[in-house]
Amino acid sequence: MKLATLPGGGADGRLVVVSRDLRRAVSVGGLAASMLDAVTRWAEIAEPLAELQEDLESGPCAGAFDFDAGACLAPLPRTWQWLDGSAFLHHGRLMERAFRTPPIPDFDTVPLLYQGAGDDLLGPCVDVAFADPAHGIDFEGEFGVVVDEVPMGVSADEALGHVLLCVQLNDWSLRTLGAREMRTGFGFLQAKPSTSFAPVALTPGELGSAWRHGRMALELHVQWNQQPFGKPSGAEMHFHFGQLIAHAAATRRLSAGTIIGSGTVSNADPASGSACIAERRVLEILQDGGPKTRYMAFGDRVRMEARHPLGAEAPFGAIDQRIVRAS
Amino acid sequence: MKLATLPGGGADGRLVVVSRDLRRAVSVGGLAASMLDAVTRWAEIAEPLAELQEDLESGPCAGAFDFDAGACLAPLPRTWQWLDGSAFLHHGRLMERAFRTPPIPDFDTVPLLYQGAGDDLLGPCVDVAFADPAHGIDFEGEFGVVVDEVPMGVSADEALGHVLLCVQLNDWSLRTLGAREMRTGFGFLQAKPSTSFAPVALTPGELGSAWRHGRMALELHVQWNQQPFGKPSGAEMHFHFGQLIAHAAATRRLSAGTIIGSGTVSNADPASGSACIAERRVLEILQDGGPKTRYMAFGDRVRMEARHPLGAEAPFGAIDQRIVRAS
Repeated sequence: MKLATLPGGGADGRLVVVSRDLRRAVSVGGLAASMLDAVTRWAEIAEPLAELQEDLESGPCAGAFDFDAGACLAPLPRTWQWLDGSAFLHHGRLMERAFRTPPIPDFDTVPLLYQGAGDDLLGPCVDVAFADPAHGIDFEGEFGVVVDEVPMGVSADEALGHVLLCVQLNDWSLRTLGAREMRTGFGFLQAKPSTSFAPVALTPGELGSAWRHGRMALELHVQWNQQPFGKPSGAEMHFHFGQLIAHAAATRRLSAGTIIGSGTVSNADPASGSACIAERRVLEILQDGGPKTRYMAFGDRVRMEARHPLGAEAPFGAIDQRIVRAS
Repeated sequence: MKLATLPGGGADGRLVVVSRDLRRAVSVGGLAASMLDAVTRWAEIAEPLAELQEDLESGPCAGAFDFDAGACLAPLPRTWQWLDGSAFLHHGRLMERAFRTPPIPDFDTVPLLYQGAGDDLLGPCVDVAFADPAHGIDFEGEFGVVVDEVPMGVSADEALGHVLLCVQLNDWSLRTLGAREMRTGFGFLQAKPSTSFAPVALTPGELGSAWRHGRMALELHVQWNQQPFGKPSGAEMHFHFGQLIAHAAATRRLSAGTIIGSGTVSNADPASGSACIAERRVLEILQDGGPKTRYMAFGDRVRMEARHPLGAEAPFGAIDQRIVRAS
């Protein structure tokens, strides 16, 4: 099943089912008030939604219309909880060198996540406003999952059964603020403004064999100002999403609609490039003694699109955004 | 205006206006679906709510009933964002000594907040379930505020104008997990399970002169298993709530309903006692070379009630909870 959220119907938007080729869509009508409502009542509406998907695929479908991915809001324009991991160890180790922070204890045996703000999640093509380029504006290409209600103490295997939807996202980061906030021990706040999402959220089954061991074996193609920047694969994620969910739910339950992010997708093979600027900069430091690549400037664009390794299909659609000065 | 949330009407509960003596209440009816709805549409409903308050105070009020504070949910049983500060410097400095974490940079000039989970906020009298006493179960008595929508880049003075409601809360903490999470730099997650709230949320004007310079000059009386544990005053808060809000909104907007906490209330005068166990333990370490007080055990109770320094009035009602083993 492929789902998206279009404007209308209030802050949570209105839910549509999207055809597998992302060309057409149909409103879910009275089935659910929004994507947040749908994931909260998943058990009762998953089947009618799947029937609507099949109607849309099989030909004429009453009320179907052309799907405008660029008009989408984030699949969940707001949600009760947004937790972002750092499950690609290659990325984490490079970041320690980039920002000269102490080695994170147990980094390869205990999953690492920070608590983010889920109150204002951005659609794939809106301009993104920042206060100051001196903050070190960077993108972070990631995958994520949306869960139903997860009980406290769930196991990693059981946790995978709570994954309802897969998403693709850009965890915008302000690097000069982030290094300082890490040293406080209290984690990120100013360094992590609103996060952007690709238009389509999909059930893991839609990925076929690319949903593998709780990871998304897709290449995340990142372009910065129309230039290829990286295409690392999600298959190299060290902890799978079930492990991240179980870690987050060890001492509390998670509400339906909680989003769990993978952290920046990153591969050991340098030919795969990077999904954030900070990673390229630290590679430049290691190779040449200093960074050559700047962070983002107002007017810059970033595009992110996950693709199956053996094809051009982009199951989530694309994030394609420009950054602007906050007014 | 004094407000509370009673069960019914879904996960957000139903909103009532509470009499100033906390004895009677009246449903807001069609004015607002919930407290979250009310703070989102505050400009249009504050006046009718205030009229309902005056009706309730002045005598017979259609539909009024006895107020059962013990039956309340948290004023906001869930909200889009929950950010907790550490604005009592005396507490912060003691915690560094307790957990041997490095000094937090700029602790007295830059406000410090962590991002918490707002998806599951607990009412004042429900049993609170924890997985394991070995996690170092501790309470943290705090004040907090609820804001309307705050624009990015707001000043500290302007931010005070966004405070709609004051609340009193217990930021439950798992100390053995927290020290580890601080060392990761990613902040608290497992160490901060669901937070508990006193039954009543009130407009700052209800506090009279005790709402002073953006702080609550109230004594927070804490009892652990019926024994007095501390009564520190909120007046010693180093950063005021406007400064905390402005810090949080420096790089992003805050949605209506965001809750900002003060951090553990703590005073320099040892006679005021403590609002968390960790603080008493570090004082014991400094005085006697080792801690004598244990953390909480299943079956323990904690009661927290803020009072005007010159009277017995408890404007928020009381948090009074028992901790139990998670099933």
